[in-house]
Amino acid sequence: MAKQLIVDLYGCDSVILDSEEKVRNISKQIIERVGATIVEECFKKFEPIGITYFAIISTSHFSVHTWPENGYAAVDLFSCSEFDEEYICELLKTFFKASEVKSSLVVRRLTAYE
Amino acid sequence: MAKQLIVDLYGCDSVILDSEEKVRNISKQIIERVGATIVEECFKKFEPIGITYFAIISTSHFSVHTWPENGYAAVDLFSCSEFDEEYICELLKTFFKASEVKSSLVVRRLTAYE
Repeated sequence: MAKQLIVDLYGCDSVILDSEEKVRNISKQIIERVGATIVEECFKKFEPIGITYFAIISTSHFSVHTWPENGYAAVDLFSCSEFDEEYICELLKTFFKASEVKSSLVVRRLTAYE
Repeated sequence: MAKQLIVDLYGCDSVILDSEEKVRNISKQIIERVGATIVEECFKKFEPIGITYFAIISTSHFSVHTWPENGYAAVDLFSCSEFDEEYICELLKTFFKASEVKSSLVVRRLTAYE
């Protein structure tokens, strides 16, 4: 069984949301806290603003899409290893300086019989 | 508003699930049917088996993780533009030769006030 944590962050700092360096750094910290390692990464800076960052991690994936004009970030953490979703949400809220966080958890069953 | 379609595919053809060429080709076809274009991609072939493919697309992202040993693929399609989720599920089922498909749809509100 794997878990997918889906997080919507509102009221974020728009400077953070539009900074490649900051988004990469936040992502790296979250991935480390999950106990995973980055295997491959891809990144896109959209014009005029907005970022997408994606990492294939040892336990599945981590993605961030930002809309700095809205103060919004969409984060996904898909992991085959256990993690504390409340802790990850708190970290994301702190790192992005979000005023509001909404999250949901999706269970991904890796076989039909789990 | 954006939509995120989360699809679990069971009983898939394990040869497809472990083929970089086939997974890339399926992903490309799905992304085309959504009316999006690929902006950046990353890919990892795990040892001994299993693939992760990720594309940043013009309307957000598309990801595939495969567990060929289970006949299982986990697919996500996150898009800011409208798409027909039933049609995408049917295509994925056909392309991966899946016997069972489970899907859920998550609405991603891009502002706190949508």
